[in-house]
Amino acid sequence: MKFVLIGGDTETARIDGISAAGATPDAMVHTPSADLEIVEYDHPVQAPVVPGSPSGCPTPAVITRAVRELLAFDLLAVEAGLAGSTMAPTVRIGDEVGSDIRTSDPVASASDTFEAARRLGRSLPDEELVIGETIPGDTTTALGVLTALGEQPTVSSSLPENPLSLKRGVVREALDTSSISNGSAAGTPIEAVRHIGDPVLGAVAGLTAGATAAGKNVPLAGGTQMAAAAALVGHTGTGSSLSLATTSFIVADETAGIRELADDLDVALTVTDPGFGSVSHPAMDAYVAGEAKEGVGMGGAWSLAAAADVSMAAVREKVATVYDRLVGEEVTAT
Amino acid sequence: MKFVLIGGDTETARIDGISAAGATPDAMVHTPSADLEIVEYDHPVQAPVVPGSPSGCPTPAVITRAVRELLAFDLLAVEAGLAGSTMAPTVRIGDEVGSDIRTSDPVASASDTFEAARRLGRSLPDEELVIGETIPGDTTTALGVLTALGEQPTVSSSLPENPLSLKRGVVREALDTSSISNGSAAGTPIEAVRHIGDPVLGAVAGLTAGATAAGKNVPLAGGTQMAAAAALVGHTGTGSSLSLATTSFIVADETAGIRELADDLDVALTVTDPGFGSVSHPAMDAYVAGEAKEGVGMGGAWSLAAAADVSMAAVREKVATVYDRLVGEEVTAT
Repeated sequence: MKFVLIGGDTETARIDGISAAGATPDAMVHTPSADLEIVEYDHPVQAPVVPGSPSGCPTPAVITRAVRELLAFDLLAVEAGLAGSTMAPTVRIGDEVGSDIRTSDPVASASDTFEAARRLGRSLPDEELVIGETIPGDTTTALGVLTALGEQPTVSSSLPENPLSLKRGVVREALDTSSISNGSAAGTPIEAVRHIGDPVLGAVAGLTAGATAAGKNVPLAGGTQMAAAAALVGHTGTGSSLSLATTSFIVADETAGIRELADDLDVALTVTDPGFGSVSHPAMDAYVAGEAKEGVGMGGAWSLAAAADVSMAAVREKVATVYDRLVGEEVTAT
Repeated sequence: MKFVLIGGDTETARIDGISAAGATPDAMVHTPSADLEIVEYDHPVQAPVVPGSPSGCPTPAVITRAVRELLAFDLLAVEAGLAGSTMAPTVRIGDEVGSDIRTSDPVASASDTFEAARRLGRSLPDEELVIGETIPGDTTTALGVLTALGEQPTVSSSLPENPLSLKRGVVREALDTSSISNGSAAGTPIEAVRHIGDPVLGAVAGLTAGATAAGKNVPLAGGTQMAAAAALVGHTGTGSSLSLATTSFIVADETAGIRELADDLDVALTVTDPGFGSVSHPAMDAYVAGEAKEGVGMGGAWSLAAAADVSMAAVREKVATVYDRLVGEEVTAT
């Protein structure tokens, strides 16, 4: 088994109020790079800080790193349009950051990225690939892709209150720019990514298509964004059966409609509750309050822990340790 | 322990007759990318073929991969000016391929590469880093650097007959272009890399300087090129004690003068003989005949095997298995 973490950026995330994946819009540009470094090395190396939301909710990378310390799983970091540079070792399958989806041709390299990812998925020697992602703004591009494919257009949010009307307005404007209507990209998933998606969606879809075609098992680790990736794979017409491993926070978000979305897409859903409500710790409290909810493959990491008979109590304890170590480093760094 | 493999390119390697690290000069451009993929995945993924010399000696990557299969050591691939793209996960600390050292400012990014590598070396959590390299043409740039630093100017070759007079002519011309004389870059190692080296030399020196300053143990896995890297670190004035792990083939090459060079630089030398002469196999015969001699950290990999009480007979057997598998794949690939 390999845990594949795909990092990238879309300028769609810079739209005011659309994402909480960074303390400020300027800081958000470093979030994916830092996330990859935290899961790889346990701390940011090149990236300046540990990412957090404006209110201080720490990045899910802390949680996925904690599970990695418990399970020692293999990590493969993949870049698909990363804005900042990273010191994590990565396979680069795309260099271009996605543009704001309200502009023309925001992911011009969608086809190249999909093909490079498909080759990688086919070539990797592992029998199972768990795929997670880190890209701010991804639920908005996911909403765009689901709409363009004609699938159920519901998505979650990294904010406690899902700014759905803002997202819908952005998607509407994007559809207009690209002359796409609801469902008009059905059967042409690469066109959907190119005109209203982001480079990470293209990479996840390509990697999944390549890996499943080669007979590998590919649980997608994420929420509605990964459901959109599964929808893209479905629209390639491969007929692969896919599964999604997500968090109880996504299920608790009624605006996400994840169960209905998964049913609709014929994707098996695994939900793991880490029991964060049973403890009080700055690494976990904000999740209980509805922030972040998913990301960096967090839900998939918990499902791996559960499958390995590692208790959620052990996960919570390790999350606290990793967070305290990281924050201690930040405070004592000179 | 982490095995760090730094791949890059210099156009110096395109000078006719200077390197055997590729079947043809055109093929040579893919050698470092393929080497990284072979050690990472066991076969080339993006790179088109298994690299070999014009006479068919397979790349030392096959051998380092074989040892990795026996020891399961952690690999970190690093890019410093790679010409071809690679599907191996890498940390990218430099984008620019080194120019022919006979031109002006062939490694203009030497200082940036050194600093990025130093940061990486300091940051990596491992207590020991074994550093290997893959860059065709490296003994010529090493000869240039040793000359510019005022150190013993002797180097080995990937060819059975070391084209020393050709290399000396290239270095003389390079010194003229950059207005450097013997020893005039003593104490300014980054200038030596910039004007007469290659990006990998800068990266190895920076990584070593950063890692040793942080108290890590850093055996350099290679021959005269790694000795030149050790010389560069020495000229940074850090006073670190370094060691070199190389092959019996390098020691057998009288033109290399590796023992005298190591003594002169106060570098501890470990030499491992894999006993290839005791078997007859296409993966090993050319080495016995004096080809390749070193590269992709091969000598360091053997020293790790020896330290882990893995016999050279087991290494030879695994080398044959990895080679046969690779060649079988090539033949059956459609």
